[in-house]
Amino acid sequence: MFRERLEKAQAAVAAQFDHVLAQMDDVPVVRAMAHATHGGKRLRGFLALETARLHGIEPAAAIWPATAIETLHAYSLVHDDMPCMDDDDLRRGLPTVHRKWDEATAVLAGDALQSLAFEMVTAPEVGPGDVRAKLARTLAIAAGAQGMVLGQALDIAAETATVPLTLEEITALQQGKTGALIGWSAMVGPRMAGDDTAPLAAYATALGLAFQIADDILDVEGDADTVGKATGKDADAGKATFVSLLGLDGAKSRAADLVQSACDALSIYGKDGETLRDAARFVVARKS
Amino acid sequence: MFRERLEKAQAAVAAQFDHVLAQMDDVPVVRAMAHATHGGKRLRGFLALETARLHGIEPAAAIWPATAIETLHAYSLVHDDMPCMDDDDLRRGLPTVHRKWDEATAVLAGDALQSLAFEMVTAPEVGPGDVRAKLARTLAIAAGAQGMVLGQALDIAAETATVPLTLEEITALQQGKTGALIGWSAMVGPRMAGDDTAPLAAYATALGLAFQIADDILDVEGDADTVGKATGKDADAGKATFVSLLGLDGAKSRAADLVQSACDALSIYGKDGETLRDAARFVVARKS
Repeated sequence: MFRERLEKAQAAVAAQFDHVLAQMDDVPVVRAMAHATHGGKRLRGFLALETARLHGIEPAAAIWPATAIETLHAYSLVHDDMPCMDDDDLRRGLPTVHRKWDEATAVLAGDALQSLAFEMVTAPEVGPGDVRAKLARTLAIAAGAQGMVLGQALDIAAETATVPLTLEEITALQQGKTGALIGWSAMVGPRMAGDDTAPLAAYATALGLAFQIADDILDVEGDADTVGKATGKDADAGKATFVSLLGLDGAKSRAADLVQSACDALSIYGKDGETLRDAARFVVARKS
Repeated sequence: MFRERLEKAQAAVAAQFDHVLAQMDDVPVVRAMAHATHGGKRLRGFLALETARLHGIEPAAAIWPATAIETLHAYSLVHDDMPCMDDDDLRRGLPTVHRKWDEATAVLAGDALQSLAFEMVTAPEVGPGDVRAKLARTLAIAAGAQGMVLGQALDIAAETATVPLTLEEITALQQGKTGALIGWSAMVGPRMAGDDTAPLAAYATALGLAFQIADDILDVEGDADTVGKATGKDADAGKATFVSLLGLDGAKSRAADLVQSACDALSIYGKDGETLRDAARFVVARKS
């Protein structure tokens, strides 16, 4: 069921990108935006669509925040890959934007993708004004200097730190860097419906941390062709990760505990929450 | 009257930045954001506050979009100053963010400033949800790949173009690069009040173009100490500007005509529009 819903979400998000980007002028910066929004697991978009379904929101409304969060995620990857940041040549198996075009195009395409995320999340199709305003405001907070950007900044500072980060510091870093957007994605359903966001917030906190631990494991165990980006970078850089702090077995066992916590948080959804439980299991089992 | 209102707007926007940034963690990226939002003419913030006043909107509500547009403008300057873009060391008389910190901090501080702009424009104090959603959506469109970023991309393409731009192309470039945000600022009042935006849209189109022509004139006639950034760059780069295309006298006469058009567009406001008329006159008479 999860695989099927994830694939449906991937197709729906891709179609929405095609629809939106086709309306824009055919200039290099727009082509770079299209390139950057291509591919990916679409986990965030899936979470938005699936939690919307759980809360009785129409897919035609939910596709907008689902695509918005993938747009915001894409912008963060474009900027994160730049030479002054992580300096990556490969992303999702394709050349990064600054490699295929240039750095100026990477800055501008990332900037325009962030704007586009806010344009999408406030689309008239999303619903009443207060819902659109709430989605935009919470997205801005999750993306900004108290959320994702703070995590990115801590991550870069960690690379030049003389003392490796502690487990507590790495957890805080992750909660900003990937946790904030994953949390926002999982709360799309209850936010749009005006329902309680607490169960899905708890689910997303555990899921996000499990996701990052799995990423650190992949960086050690995966190969670049399967993962779609360079691997072994953290160990080469002597950077503290969940694996370096907990050991490979410790990290795997921690990830398994978190999957259990994520599943437990969904108890009020009963059997309807099964797809999200499968998603949590997938996140730690994935190979890319 | 205009000078007084501009100074009041500058003080109100500065106080709002202090208020908002003081609530954030004291980390380098937040310090860089504070640095980047310091100073400036605050013309966009003034336009938002003044048009809000004309349409009966409370200053306590209007200060949020006014500060939001200055935040968005600040982000665009931080990224525009980077080595891969305009490569400037000086902005508003201070070192640019990538010079005072580094390029990664400039990318991240700019990114977080864009998020912050959308957080501010959807603040509960702004008003009902539909007003906040409308402001966020129109801001996203003005900032993105069909507005400001498109103008920036055309500007960078122009620098490496073998054939200089025509007057028509430069006008289109300006309408994106500075016109989109100036237009948004001037429409804050009628948008918040649910009134007709057409007169202020016409005013802003003429004002924005006059502003850019005045900038090109300053690049030729101004000195860096007064202007607060490097001058003479366009001529050195052999770049087409309104001055290179119209001549210095032609550019001045064109700017004067545009000021007249801007003033004429305000006829429905009668004497109440006098401060905005003064603003248009100021824009072409300024020395920085």
